[in-house]
Amino acid sequence: MRALRKTAPGPGFEMVDVPVPEIGPDEVLIEVRATSICGTDVHIYQWNPWAAAHVATPITVGHELTGIVVDRGANVAEPEVGQLVSVESHIIDNTCNWCRTGHGHLCPATQILGVHRDGAYAEYVAVPAQNAWPDPPDMALSIASLQENFGNAVHTASVVQMGGKKVLVTGAGPVGVMAMMTAKALGARAVYVTDISDYRLDLATKVGADLVVNAATTDVEEAILEETAGEGVDILLEMSGAPTAIDSAFHLLKPGGEAALLGLTSGPIEFDFDDNVIFKGATVYGVVGRRLWQTWFEMRGLIRSGSVDLAPIVTHRFALDDYDEAFALMESGRCGKVVMFPDPAYADGPLS
Amino acid sequence: MRALRKTAPGPGFEMVDVPVPEIGPDEVLIEVRATSICGTDVHIYQWNPWAAAHVATPITVGHELTGIVVDRGANVAEPEVGQLVSVESHIIDNTCNWCRTGHGHLCPATQILGVHRDGAYAEYVAVPAQNAWPDPPDMALSIASLQENFGNAVHTASVVQMGGKKVLVTGAGPVGVMAMMTAKALGARAVYVTDISDYRLDLATKVGADLVVNAATTDVEEAILEETAGEGVDILLEMSGAPTAIDSAFHLLKPGGEAALLGLTSGPIEFDFDDNVIFKGATVYGVVGRRLWQTWFEMRGLIRSGSVDLAPIVTHRFALDDYDEAFALMESGRCGKVVMFPDPAYADGPLS
Amino acid sequence: MRALRKTAPGPGFEMVDVPVPEIGPDEVLIEVRATSICGTDVHIYQWNPWAAAHVATPITVGHELTGIVVDRGANVAEPEVGQLVSVESHIIDNTCNWCRTGHGHLCPATQILGVHRDGAYAEYVAVPAQNAWPDPPDMALSIASLQENFGNAVHTASVVQMGGKKVLVTGAGPVGVMAMMTAKALGARAVYVTDISDYRLDLATKVGADLVVNAATTDVEEAILEETAGEGVDILLEMSGAPTAIDSAFHLLKPGGEAALLGLTSGPIEFDFDDNVIFKGATVYGVVGRRLWQTWFEMRGLIRSGSVDLAPIVTHRFALDDYDEAFALMESGRCGKVVMFPDPAYADGPLS
Amino acid sequence: MRALRKTAPGPGFEMVDVPVPEIGPDEVLIEVRATSICGTDVHIYQWNPWAAAHVATPITVGHELTGIVVDRGANVAEPEVGQLVSVESHIIDNTCNWCRTGHGHLCPATQILGVHRDGAYAEYVAVPAQNAWPDPPDMALSIASLQENFGNAVHTASVVQMGGKKVLVTGAGPVGVMAMMTAKALGARAVYVTDISDYRLDLATKVGADLVVNAATTDVEEAILEETAGEGVDILLEMSGAPTAIDSAFHLLKPGGEAALLGLTSGPIEFDFDDNVIFKGATVYGVVGRRLWQTWFEMRGLIRSGSVDLAPIVTHRFALDDYDEAFALMESGRCGKVVMFPDPAYADGPLS
Repeated sequence: MRALRKTAPGPGFEMVDVPVPEIGPDEVLIEVRATSICGTDVHIYQWNPWAAAHVATPITVGHELTGIVVDRGANVAEPEVGQLVSVESHIIDNTCNWCRTGHGHLCPATQILGVHRDGAYAEYVAVPAQNAWPDPPDMALSIASLQENFGNAVHTASVVQMGGKKVLVTGAGPVGVMAMMTAKALGARAVYVTDISDYRLDLATKVGADLVVNAATTDVEEAILEETAGEGVDILLEMSGAPTAIDSAFHLLKPGGEAALLGLTSGPIEFDFDDNVIFKGATVYGVVGRRLWQTWFEMRGLIRSGSVDLAPIVTHRFALDDYDEAFALMESGRCGKVVMFPDPAYADGPLS
Repeated sequence: MRALRKTAPGPGFEMVDVPVPEIGPDEVLIEVRATSICGTDVHIYQWNPWAAAHVATPITVGHELTGIVVDRGANVAEPEVGQLVSVESHIIDNTCNWCRTGHGHLCPATQILGVHRDGAYAEYVAVPAQNAWPDPPDMALSIASLQENFGNAVHTASVVQMGGKKVLVTGAGPVGVMAMMTAKALGARAVYVTDISDYRLDLATKVGADLVVNAATTDVEEAILEETAGEGVDILLEMSGAPTAIDSAFHLLKPGGEAALLGLTSGPIEFDFDDNVIFKGATVYGVVGRRLWQTWFEMRGLIRSGSVDLAPIVTHRFALDDYDEAFALMESGRCGKVVMFPDPAYADGPLS
Repeated sequence: MRALRKTAPGPGFEMVDVPVPEIGPDEVLIEVRATSICGTDVHIYQWNPWAAAHVATPITVGHELTGIVVDRGANVAEPEVGQLVSVESHIIDNTCNWCRTGHGHLCPATQILGVHRDGAYAEYVAVPAQNAWPDPPDMALSIASLQENFGNAVHTASVVQMGGKKVLVTGAGPVGVMAMMTAKALGARAVYVTDISDYRLDLATKVGADLVVNAATTDVEEAILEETAGEGVDILLEMSGAPTAIDSAFHLLKPGGEAALLGLTSGPIEFDFDDNVIFKGATVYGVVGRRLWQTWFEMRGLIRSGSVDLAPIVTHRFALDDYDEAFALMESGRCGKVVMFPDPAYADGPLS
Repeated sequence: MRALRKTAPGPGFEMVDVPVPEIGPDEVLIEVRATSICGTDVHIYQWNPWAAAHVATPITVGHELTGIVVDRGANVAEPEVGQLVSVESHIIDNTCNWCRTGHGHLCPATQILGVHRDGAYAEYVAVPAQNAWPDPPDMALSIASLQENFGNAVHTASVVQMGGKKVLVTGAGPVGVMAMMTAKALGARAVYVTDISDYRLDLATKVGADLVVNAATTDVEEAILEETAGEGVDILLEMSGAPTAIDSAFHLLKPGGEAALLGLTSGPIEFDFDDNVIFKGATVYGVVGRRLWQTWFEMRGLIRSGSVDLAPIVTHRFALDDYDEAFALMESGRCGKVVMFPDPAYADGPLS
């Protein structure tokens, strides 16, 4: 089969022929129909310091996908061959203290698809059966693929109670915009979004942000305080990892406010716990991955009810063969979610 | 001033002239602009056993209202004269263990407007300043008035996390319908509503119920199980107080489900805790009044964001003088929320 | 091997020779060192209506045990052969919605050892590896055995925050007494215990109850109100299943109180939700089994810290061969926890 | 009356004669029986940058106290004259969004006794009636006085569930030691305490710490990892404000761990949110003051049950006139809680 691989340390990917993966007794083999690009994949493409430190080559990249189950191991009862599935990219051990108490997303033995083992940018991928989440057969493939990433947004927005609250989302990448949509779907009174890309802020506006602020050109604190009659916000969803965004966001948090942090800062930052957290009696939640499998059930509900419509988030589609174009677009920042199709015949919209 | 009063034990009300209430140092005097009818008021009108046991005559009835502050006591800093306010009907002592720990809605010394002291069916009413909730000057008066009742719905729907959940609401009176709307606004995947009145179920459908079931003509358990692929529901909001509704609703609750109970049964019922609660690991929340004042802040957010549009809930408007017509309509059950206006010039829609 | 079995419907057990159980690939074989008697076992012994409806004969009875792992299936990594283990009696499927979200104790496919498959009153028992909880090699065998039952108590006492609260425990059987001890260990201000057996109330007193009340001879409500200066209690742990105990206990619950229900009523009871739950804004938790595996971690902590000393709970020890004596004692109610030993050489105290 | 005052900016205090405070209609006048020293008072004594920025002179210092109500304003119903009371030092407005929703400890209008208005180091002090917490008449005065500070410890230890958990307390000043004791009383499996003062660590050991580590001489991470078999801790109670203590403490926090921060860092610090909070899925609670009045009820329960015995925390007693000695001792760090008595006849133990 063809697979997009990092064959050796260094920038770029290579499309190569490799054997179809063999599956273990608890695994399924999936024919990949669509695979979406995560920011992490861009880091691996660029081979930034994080990638150099964490990714062992050679490896097939990619961890967001949907496809059809075409084979399964001896122990697998569900899902059945022929089933459309999306994939949870975190493979957990089911035996540690965390997995045994409903906190599998914190399993210290977690293996991530496309980072620690061969991933989704290929014609076929093997995953444990429990990581294959059944989708309705008529689900749009691009949305089915990006559910894994939507799960980050849902996890982040679900650690707090949103009803009637004013919410600030810092960072308008796809996961930030999806977090904003989730906050609205869960009853937030208003959601404000900051970023430094007008393209992304325009996307946020298009899908329902109550206010967007370009931090490169506007004083964020002033703008949000004006919008909130000087009160600030009840909830912060931090998706940028940018120290200045974090700093001003915590200034805007009301006493008793809650902050859910998903964005990575890639190193220590200066932070004033006294004023930002202690005197405010604030609560700060670290968020990683998806609650396994609580978040997937929540996602299912939000999508099937129509509370969140992810279609506008998918802005570009490419044949997997055109990966260099797709990654160049990702690097430009002038896109929402970008989806690639190993077989372009399955593209659920016009290719770019 | 004119006031609609229960002058002596027995059915009916009487419109009489009484002095304008005097206010204490911590109170405000409100010129009533609109006052909506609660089911409790119907019980007082009919003089049912509950009313006979709890209401001391003579008394001015009514506890849902909006109006303008026209005078205030010496200690009152807020709200100002001229302010449009809605009223929290539960007057609490601020000094008991419950009031001191954010649970004022459970204050054992609670006095209810129109039940324990003179209420809102009058040209003027006196209430403690802290019970007068400021509204925007352009808020529709019928909606401003019914907020107190909306608060019951919001309190009930807010004791659980709704995101992605399947919800059953038993009872489609105004508070049941508003609870259904709130559940949707807070991200419920689907909300099913039962009642025995087609009029009320039609109203529920009109404002967004995913399924309505008339329990008088349809097997509720069968209908809901069919709708949920045999799974039942995650959450029950019980607003009917009807033992058969409660029984079938708990049968439909999934293991780990949560039930919030607001409807009163007016006496003991037969209940199987083993199957309905214990083996299911279910949680049951008793709900009374509004969380003071948490619920009012939540309501404000839900209304101002547009997440809940209460306008369709108000189905009829009357001059206060036409109270006998209004109560006859309430008794018929062929209505949503019914609002009365001491001065019909302030009616925010055509009178019936 | 020898096994104590219900060979056919009807009262009593029979000690018979049966083959040592075969183990599946995910199972371990345990040589039973100690096995304690649960009230459920008494029901099976007596063959009450519940047992007749739920237990399929022939079956080896018993579900509380400790022993040594002597063999394990091909897939088993933990525990190792030679390890002392206690056993979680609920065998869950790991694949349902509940198991996948940290609520395995609500798995609809649960199989209970000694009820649905061969249990612990035998020289050997086979259980899934994940149900075998490793114990320190020097743990007292009688305590290791009863941990499964202690887990009911810990689960019940842990659904609320105990710090500084006044607690009522209705029912002073072993699980009630252990719940009382757990409540104290978690910071309860005072714990009051009711029962109709002076033997059991004496045991409760011995291990730290602040007040015990014999409901057969004393007015419980009066006694508790006097003890609490008329206030009642913050928390109810219901372990009796007795309708009169439930009724008076809810009367004693303060507004805003919380009730955790573990005791089964074996059928519907009369219950006044208005006064007991709704007007009080009370919360009621149904409790079944142990949170898998959260409760086991909590138990480990409470035991190892010395916060709860279970030694006094074990009042009698028997050779398994003397089961008729042991069950007669259980039926008398004049005992705490009764432990049986297939090989009396392992008894960790004098036999009765 | 005599009062210990900061009469002008700069180090030191002055004992001066001033009029007995006048009380407002909602206030009580308290004859001070005992007043304990807080670290904040030392900062005011030394006139550090925080004090210079926040304290307006002239002012009577001190905010931890107990005494007898000797007069009360016209609106005061409770407490009565003659009642022994302790005092909550945070005076809140009862009208803001926070006060109205059970979060009065976050009231933006908070005035602190001895910082913003005349405090407790005097023969008499005036406080709002709601800030006067009734104590049993036979309560030890030194313990009654330090309850306000104990409340910081209880608030911090109560934001998490302690049952069966391993806990690290960084900082063994009085509030750290009391937090350790509270954690044990609430069921913690083990509590480890770090500091750089052997005197304080000895005190922690004396009142029940499972392990103490002197961070000046021992590698804290190594010591705690050894004690916890390499696992680290479930819960962190941060009472030191020391950046190195915070850093190593977060390294020791397990995935899914919870950290409650009370210690102030007096400025921004370097902090790695990725590794310390996000990847761990940790939760961080900022803690300020006491939950009003929830914490006081919890304290009452913990003290009256005997779960926490504060007597050993009080290491020194002084006549108020000997304040310079008392503050010199505080500065040495060779003490637990230091209590001063305006009238030494009321000292509940030998004076130093």
